[in-house]
Amino acid sequence: MKATVLYGPRDVRFEERETPKITKPTDAIIRISATCVCGSDLWPYRGLQPVNEPTPMGHEYCGIVEEVGSAVRSVKPGQFVIGSFATSDNTCPHCKAGYHSSCVNREWMLRAQAPVLRVPLADGTLVPTPGNPSDDLIPSLLATSDVLGTGWFAAIAANVKPGATVAVVGDGAVGLLGVLSARQMGAERIIVMSRHATRQKLAREFGATDIVTERGDEGVARIKDLTKGIGVDSALECVGTQEAMMQAIRCTRPGGTIGYVGVPHGVELDGEKLFYTHVHLHGGPAPVRRFLPELIDLVLNKKINPGKVFDLTLPLEQVAEGYRAMDERRAIKTLLRP
Amino acid sequence: MKATVLYGPRDVRFEERETPKITKPTDAIIRISATCVCGSDLWPYRGLQPVNEPTPMGHEYCGIVEEVGSAVRSVKPGQFVIGSFATSDNTCPHCKAGYHSSCVNREWMLRAQAPVLRVPLADGTLVPTPGNPSDDLIPSLLATSDVLGTGWFAAIAANVKPGATVAVVGDGAVGLLGVLSARQMGAERIIVMSRHATRQKLAREFGATDIVTERGDEGVARIKDLTKGIGVDSALECVGTQEAMMQAIRCTRPGGTIGYVGVPHGVELDGEKLFYTHVHLHGGPAPVRRFLPELIDLVLNKKINPGKVFDLTLPLEQVAEGYRAMDERRAIKTLLRP
Repeated sequence: MKATVLYGPRDVRFEERETPKITKPTDAIIRISATCVCGSDLWPYRGLQPVNEPTPMGHEYCGIVEEVGSAVRSVKPGQFVIGSFATSDNTCPHCKAGYHSSCVNREWMLRAQAPVLRVPLADGTLVPTPGNPSDDLIPSLLATSDVLGTGWFAAIAANVKPGATVAVVGDGAVGLLGVLSARQMGAERIIVMSRHATRQKLAREFGATDIVTERGDEGVARIKDLTKGIGVDSALECVGTQEAMMQAIRCTRPGGTIGYVGVPHGVELDGEKLFYTHVHLHGGPAPVRRFLPELIDLVLNKKINPGKVFDLTLPLEQVAEGYRAMDERRAIKTLLRP
Repeated sequence: MKATVLYGPRDVRFEERETPKITKPTDAIIRISATCVCGSDLWPYRGLQPVNEPTPMGHEYCGIVEEVGSAVRSVKPGQFVIGSFATSDNTCPHCKAGYHSSCVNREWMLRAQAPVLRVPLADGTLVPTPGNPSDDLIPSLLATSDVLGTGWFAAIAANVKPGATVAVVGDGAVGLLGVLSARQMGAERIIVMSRHATRQKLAREFGATDIVTERGDEGVARIKDLTKGIGVDSALECVGTQEAMMQAIRCTRPGGTIGYVGVPHGVELDGEKLFYTHVHLHGGPAPVRRFLPELIDLVLNKKINPGKVFDLTLPLEQVAEGYRAMDERRAIKTLLRP
């Protein structure tokens, strides 16, 4: 098969690779229906994270099970399944506590920007849909695999409650789906920091009530203005930079909560300053597996349409253009069809 | 009157000062029944926090109201009252959210190591007891003013629930009362990090089930051993150093919570490392006013005896010895009687 490999900054190749096979009894092999490019793929693509060797890419996926290992019980060939970017056994104490992405047997998924994928710990990682979904639902189902699951966790981690006032820092696909998630959880007011017309429009469609175009001190001041000087109840940090994290912290009221899901790059928190803000901080790699059954239901029942974040669909072989379009902010998120 | 002034590292003087008077209609003047030395007073005492000018000391207090300003409604002369180290109006949005120590009208209390004290925002800051308490209850009532209120907030911030496994980092008076608080909240297992026999004994009396004497990597490994490799549900960080904070974070399970109340001195958190721990972080200056009515009730009903942390009682004029005894760890906490 041909699959995606990152050789270095801005060097994405679609090249011949070995087709994966079952290697452990707990594995499943799935034929990918759709995969995509993640905002986090752009860190190494942009050279902001080292690429020490040719690296197979992709960790968002859904597809049809082709084959399962001898120990797999909960999925079978022919089923349509969705998994997370982190494998999980779904039985260890961390999984039982809902933190599947800290599973004691976790592996980080890679190699999903490909036509065929091996998924370890298939029983604990994959969730099958009831029957095979229609093609128009594929983008939204794919979204549950990471980008929606991560936006959802941002809102959960930020303790979004009915009636809440929420700020979302970051207008990438995760931030936009953070808006959708906060709305689903009953937030009354959702303020998005965005300077990009297309993204502002989609944010409003997902439930944003206010747009703040200022950043840094001015952005914080604007949010304070919008909240009578109090600050927001919940802030979703969906970027991972120092600036984004500090905006989230500084616009949150004492006793409020920041849910941070942007993988931090160079973020340092001053303990004393954090202390006097009185905020709650929670985040990390989203335990998507916890949310998958609920999110899949919401999609299949057409309560939500997270697939709208995919504003570019390409054949998998054009994956390099998919990265370019996101890097240049011509696309919010690229869906790839093998 | 004579009162306590810190002139520089290890230079505590008890000297003539002006007796405070009502300066605003919202003030009250109280005659101190008991005050004490706080662990946080040791930072400037030890020269770890600059003392730029002679600084009146003390922020834990209880006593009898002598006089109130014309706007004061909820306390009156003759009443026994307890207040927090942070004044609060008890009506602003932050107070209503339970974060009185972030009150928009907050002032930090000083000057309480004295026979007479002016308390601003008396209505929102002071809580009167029903009738005047007997003398044997004074130490425990004084404790509610800060050290118990802070230990209690550490446990609240760390989300201690019935049945929880808890670690307490720090065996000072706040840490010890964090143990008492966690026990009150139903924690089943309470692991205290302590190397000091007297403190270990009091910790056990307050409800500790395990003592860990190791620190750093070894301390974390020991707590992991005690929790089947999982980590604790809740950690109370009651010191404020980088080492203590990292111990608290590293011994907590994914999804668990650190409540930190030690005023951070030189603490820096690496965003990326924190991200992958999956912990919740909450803390800050304890909003003691939120807890005062409940804590005063627990003391008056003799459900708790937090005053046991005072293992040295001195006349106020010997305040310098009170600091010395704590600095040299001869005393856990010094109570001062004017």
